[in-house]
Amino acid sequence: MIHGGDIYTEGVFKGKELIDYSSNINPLGVPKTFLSNINEAVKNLEIYPDVSYRKINKSIENYLKIKNMGIVLGNGASEIIELSVSLFKRILIVVPSYIEYEINARRHNVDIIYSYLNSDMDIDYKDIMSKFKEVEAIIIGNPNNPNGGIINKDKFKYILNFAEKNKKTIIIDEAFVEFTGNTNFSFTQEAEQYNCLFIIRAMTKFFAMPGIRFGYGITKNKEIINKIKEKQNPWNINCFAEIAAIKCLSDKKYIEESLLWIKSARGNFINGLQDISFIEKVFYPHANFVLIKLKKITGETLYELLLQEGFVIRRAKNFKGLDDSFVRFAIKDDRLNESFIKVLKGVEGKI
Amino acid sequence: MIHGGDIYTEGVFKGKELIDYSSNINPLGVPKTFLSNINEAVKNLEIYPDVSYRKINKSIENYLKIKNMGIVLGNGASEIIELSVSLFKRILIVVPSYIEYEINARRHNVDIIYSYLNSDMDIDYKDIMSKFKEVEAIIIGNPNNPNGGIINKDKFKYILNFAEKNKKTIIIDEAFVEFTGNTNFSFTQEAEQYNCLFIIRAMTKFFAMPGIRFGYGITKNKEIINKIKEKQNPWNINCFAEIAAIKCLSDKKYIEESLLWIKSARGNFINGLQDISFIEKVFYPHANFVLIKLKKITGETLYELLLQEGFVIRRAKNFKGLDDSFVRFAIKDDRLNESFIKVLKGVEGKI
Repeated sequence: MIHGGDIYTEGVFKGKELIDYSSNINPLGVPKTFLSNINEAVKNLEIYPDVSYRKINKSIENYLKIKNMGIVLGNGASEIIELSVSLFKRILIVVPSYIEYEINARRHNVDIIYSYLNSDMDIDYKDIMSKFKEVEAIIIGNPNNPNGGIINKDKFKYILNFAEKNKKTIIIDEAFVEFTGNTNFSFTQEAEQYNCLFIIRAMTKFFAMPGIRFGYGITKNKEIINKIKEKQNPWNINCFAEIAAIKCLSDKKYIEESLLWIKSARGNFINGLQDISFIEKVFYPHANFVLIKLKKITGETLYELLLQEGFVIRRAKNFKGLDDSFVRFAIKDDRLNESFIKVLKGVEGKI
Repeated sequence: MIHGGDIYTEGVFKGKELIDYSSNINPLGVPKTFLSNINEAVKNLEIYPDVSYRKINKSIENYLKIKNMGIVLGNGASEIIELSVSLFKRILIVVPSYIEYEINARRHNVDIIYSYLNSDMDIDYKDIMSKFKEVEAIIIGNPNNPNGGIINKDKFKYILNFAEKNKKTIIIDEAFVEFTGNTNFSFTQEAEQYNCLFIIRAMTKFFAMPGIRFGYGITKNKEIINKIKEKQNPWNINCFAEIAAIKCLSDKKYIEESLLWIKSARGNFINGLQDISFIEKVFYPHANFVLIKLKKITGETLYELLLQEGFVIRRAKNFKGLDDSFVRFAIKDDRLNESFIKVLKGVEGKI
């Protein structure tokens, strides 16, 4: 399995209940506003969706406080990643990062150049800049998966201006940006100024709905919008995803409570991890997951030991630039995080 | 609008309730077995779907009574049409037919050769055969949209054998095949024998769920399956579509009632249409829609007159080979069909 979130092979299909620390979903769960409006989706089952999805677009505009921007909708952010990456002949991927960037580039015969995060998992802005003229576009996560680091806007400014001046594209994957707790970390406002920016967002993570498959892309660059729309099939969003988007994006209470949770849980969890003897380094995240460098134990061994205790984690060795000394943990609610830390403590005795 | 089913632009957004005779949905509506099991989908919202969708595949095998076949799942049959068409360099499209075949071929730079139905809307088997050596694949509807004609298996046999022998592919779009009321009209059984066959099916029409977006393709040709899967994003089916597929495909009662309805409603509706003075020809359909050739009135005028009465029909002039003297009507329940015939009768006085 190349992704987290597969609780089927080891869990469901063997009748085991596993706690999934491999995928990064808001533990507050599906917003109630979706569940209480689910009948609106049921009512729409028998008709084709609005092929222009005008209501969803309106909700996104309100949610992001944007106007007159182009919006494309995807069956999961996966679709938007694929379609945007496929537009280019040669792309720079900042790695380690979400493996689908690379998979999609290869699928569409897009040449790839890599820019590696340094050993502190910081972005190497100079390296990106030095390679930028060789490619048409960059794709980068903000926060980036698996380390949870964010883009430093000051340091990124030169790259942004270079892209704008030279008609290049910067794809910023902000699937996790809500978890930063600070809307200023997002590039959506900049996207209203810069033609070069294409921002990808998702409902999967923050609104706890990996099952619903809904993501979107925004840019003021109408050429990109048109090129992507030409590649899309009609009615790519189903009626349940449609209602989920419309209802949840305006659910201020859920958003507020989620931000309270992540702020507190992230701090507590990181503190707890400091005490684990086989952790060499905890990379401080701005997202709801944390990258760990292990010592004295491999990712494989830790994975197996934790599985015996009913926890699934994400081994990180298939992220480019990482090896089996890296693993990624989700951040859940304090109660679960405490049990998880306790289990990690228990592992100490076994190595 | 290039498709039927757009009740938004003229209807919903203007506050008008329209009766949609432009899209072809089973009037029995969403199977109750889906609605009563919707909580299973809700339960799955917070987890990623099984990336292999093992339960859906099992349901499809049971439904089609197939074994050891390759299955690919799509976010609507649209996705399966696109991916299968995109595999080839040169394809023959039997037209007039569903416009997405052509759109997807163009999108993927697939060269197109056409084989036209004759003026009775019958398949020109000789023409297909004579052109087959020039292409890698054929795509054809069974029943075909917009005319509702089916493939004559005897006459098709030579084409099938030629394809098998010469390693070509025949894509048969069976999105409407359940409405024929005869499982022998489907090529799913032949697909267990012939490596050249790729069959596309959908839940949209027969199970009345255009909102759910679920289609699939089956073939014993593992190479095709692998090539399509390589092009697909993970988790392309959302949790509601997953439960819909699992529950509805095994709903024998719904299937039985639907077949009773279509058999009777189709006959009655066709009879009613015979009396309309501005209809030159009714092409007898094996599906739940009927292609009409008009006289003394254009499709455009009829569309406008019917819209005033609250009915939306499908003008057929954008189907290749047809002009504005063709329209397509859906077949609904007897009560609605009678009102519709009455409204058509009323139009007679206006021309």
